[in-house]
Amino acid sequence: MTGFPGDPAEFSADRSQAAELDAADPLGPFRDRFIQPGPGLIYLDGNSLGMLPAATAQRIRDLVDREWGSGLIRSWGEWIGLPQRAGDLLGAGLLGAAPGQVLVTDSTTVNLYKLACAALDAQRGRPVIVTDDDNFPTDRYVLEGIAARNGAGLRLIHSDPVEGISPAAVAAAVGQDTALLCLSHVAYRSGALADMTAITRLAHDAGAMVLWDLCHSAGSVPVSLDACGADLAAGCSYKYLNAGPGAPAFLYVRRGLQDRLRPPVQGWFGQRDQFAMGPAYDPAPGVARFAAGTPNVIGAAAVEEGARLLAEAGIGALRAKGMLLTSYLIALADAWLAPLGVTIASPRDPRHRGSHVCLRHPEAWRICQALIGEGVIGDYRNPDLLRLGPAPITTRFTDVWDALDATRRIIAAQSYAGLPQEHATVT
Amino acid sequence: MTGFPGDPAEFSADRSQAAELDAADPLGPFRDRFIQPGPGLIYLDGNSLGMLPAATAQRIRDLVDREWGSGLIRSWGEWIGLPQRAGDLLGAGLLGAAPGQVLVTDSTTVNLYKLACAALDAQRGRPVIVTDDDNFPTDRYVLEGIAARNGAGLRLIHSDPVEGISPAAVAAAVGQDTALLCLSHVAYRSGALADMTAITRLAHDAGAMVLWDLCHSAGSVPVSLDACGADLAAGCSYKYLNAGPGAPAFLYVRRGLQDRLRPPVQGWFGQRDQFAMGPAYDPAPGVARFAAGTPNVIGAAAVEEGARLLAEAGIGALRAKGMLLTSYLIALADAWLAPLGVTIASPRDPRHRGSHVCLRHPEAWRICQALIGEGVIGDYRNPDLLRLGPAPITTRFTDVWDALDATRRIIAAQSYAGLPQEHATVT
Repeated sequence: MTGFPGDPAEFSADRSQAAELDAADPLGPFRDRFIQPGPGLIYLDGNSLGMLPAATAQRIRDLVDREWGSGLIRSWGEWIGLPQRAGDLLGAGLLGAAPGQVLVTDSTTVNLYKLACAALDAQRGRPVIVTDDDNFPTDRYVLEGIAARNGAGLRLIHSDPVEGISPAAVAAAVGQDTALLCLSHVAYRSGALADMTAITRLAHDAGAMVLWDLCHSAGSVPVSLDACGADLAAGCSYKYLNAGPGAPAFLYVRRGLQDRLRPPVQGWFGQRDQFAMGPAYDPAPGVARFAAGTPNVIGAAAVEEGARLLAEAGIGALRAKGMLLTSYLIALADAWLAPLGVTIASPRDPRHRGSHVCLRHPEAWRICQALIGEGVIGDYRNPDLLRLGPAPITTRFTDVWDALDATRRIIAAQSYAGLPQEHATVT
Repeated sequence: MTGFPGDPAEFSADRSQAAELDAADPLGPFRDRFIQPGPGLIYLDGNSLGMLPAATAQRIRDLVDREWGSGLIRSWGEWIGLPQRAGDLLGAGLLGAAPGQVLVTDSTTVNLYKLACAALDAQRGRPVIVTDDDNFPTDRYVLEGIAARNGAGLRLIHSDPVEGISPAAVAAAVGQDTALLCLSHVAYRSGALADMTAITRLAHDAGAMVLWDLCHSAGSVPVSLDACGADLAAGCSYKYLNAGPGAPAFLYVRRGLQDRLRPPVQGWFGQRDQFAMGPAYDPAPGVARFAAGTPNVIGAAAVEEGARLLAEAGIGALRAKGMLLTSYLIALADAWLAPLGVTIASPRDPRHRGSHVCLRHPEAWRICQALIGEGVIGDYRNPDLLRLGPAPITTRFTDVWDALDATRRIIAAQSYAGLPQEHATVT
């Protein structure tokens, strides 16, 4: 792929450069593998809810009509292995995890809970959980609850709102008292990308386990769970993995830890010899013990389809395009929006950010609403951030150009001024 | 509805009686509201995975193609209220619960965990959880785990394998030390129906809370949660509620308890003013605090469709037909299968059982497989039970006749003898 390398000297604000970048984009044809939401819509919210792959629409239809409708209970022979099969596919294609360590199950929230509880139990004598003050809300709330119920402390690292968490900040916060460090790989607001390798090593040097939240990186940024020795991870599937609203999340437990950890939710899908339905709980070997209840079959099938599609595109190509898209977005913002009072609230070095960018403006909420009114979908993040997520597999450079062009027109004309002041959004 | 009233004197083993019962069945037309699994299939496993309503197939298609595919993130305005809306529908139509007390979320396992943890916390000084030794495995395993992690005891009531739990057995087991009593309303093997009103009263007299598992009753047996003062309940949606494989479960928290209970899984969907994404967890008022992560949208929509269809049929009519279907099944088994060594492992009084029946035979596993080979789908339950679940909304009396006729032929001819000895099944 040739084109704009992130060097302002080679940047042009002319739309023809975006068209050239699209023409040269090796991932361009993947856009046709998705259901198009209608003419004129520019979707920069794939970091919140990814688009619908055509294969997924077909798979769900077949699963509902044929496997459920006709096969009925007999289809469980096929369904029973889906959570591990989809997990292995995610692991191999996108997460750098060998088979038998990733499971598609429950929500990110429930998975964070199960993993963090189990880690705390396994680290008796270490009464502290560490996270950061800008971590995603559900991570912070879950950990706060676990700490309170278990008489442990929750220590918050201060995270730079733009650059995120540095290894130095982690080193200062993690010590001999630390059971678990839980951080997001990509920050949900700034998009700052944490140094997973260095931070995992630092935590291990102190004897702490590490739980990575991969919600905003899986499918857009390479993850190497095995190679960096990560202990635990969890993440959702409805953003860059394109598995649909409320599709099940995934969890990762490093092989060497699996049989040492006991899940707090002792469900029958995590039971050894499940259908013997024996009198006492006996955790299944391996990652399977972290399953709980009956799996969300339709959602897990959608995860499998999404993982397959993204793996086909290749995480290297997705990452390269993601860096280029966001660099291009930032260059346009510098050229057009900085004079209008917008600042960049994401790392400028593409190696240090994921695939979304936050623009700061006091009227971010109303600008976001005005953009939606013009068919440009981004989202708002408290208190003054317009978050734009060009998904590498579906977003064109011309989409970024058109979105930024709409943004500059709206801000310049203050055409948001008639809109109400309020906020509500969903990631 | 006229016909066979459960009185052996009026029973005829002639198939014409089954045809007459079908002709007189006021719920008969509802069968056409479901996708038919193909000619010749007799499905008596609706108590494990209910059939696919045509409206649900259409709703999922619309949700995927239009709401997700075209609406994308904008559809969250519609989706965000779905878990409570579907819950209210279940409550009003099937569970005897006023609005604001039922939520569609997570799996039964995770819901049992959340509710039981919260109850134990709220009952400090009462160190015992009581359940029964024949309760569904996930209930027993979850409670065992909660008790162990919290230094509480788990006391098992011995449940009669046919008649289930009596109020007297509960009275003997529940006392001043009891935080929580957790029982299934309908037993997953025998189908025994517990006396929810009497048992709830007994537990309350001792100061214990009660958590009812409604998996095997919701949609087939009337439930009056509010009227009997139940504290907590949970249940799945993929059996009699016809919401599909792994669709989300529901939970109920009595209004008066809601603001006293603190969920152990402090998720962002249970947070007051969720999208302010504030620094500390502040539980939402009402039942909403028992939500955790992002809801399974497709599954919750299927629950809404299933609840609507069953409520339209009417739980009174469903119950009347369920009693008649199972009485008829037992009468045929007495006439045909008792001489072949089969015994009835379910209560004979229809008022004391739900909508499934277990037949006991040492070769139950292989008989079940031979039946499946002939297109008659029931399921096997450890160690020697053939479980047949005629779902009131989809099963015909002729289906019961044909299934029992196939069973007698298979046992009489020992045509299962060539099949392997093993077992694996899913409920």
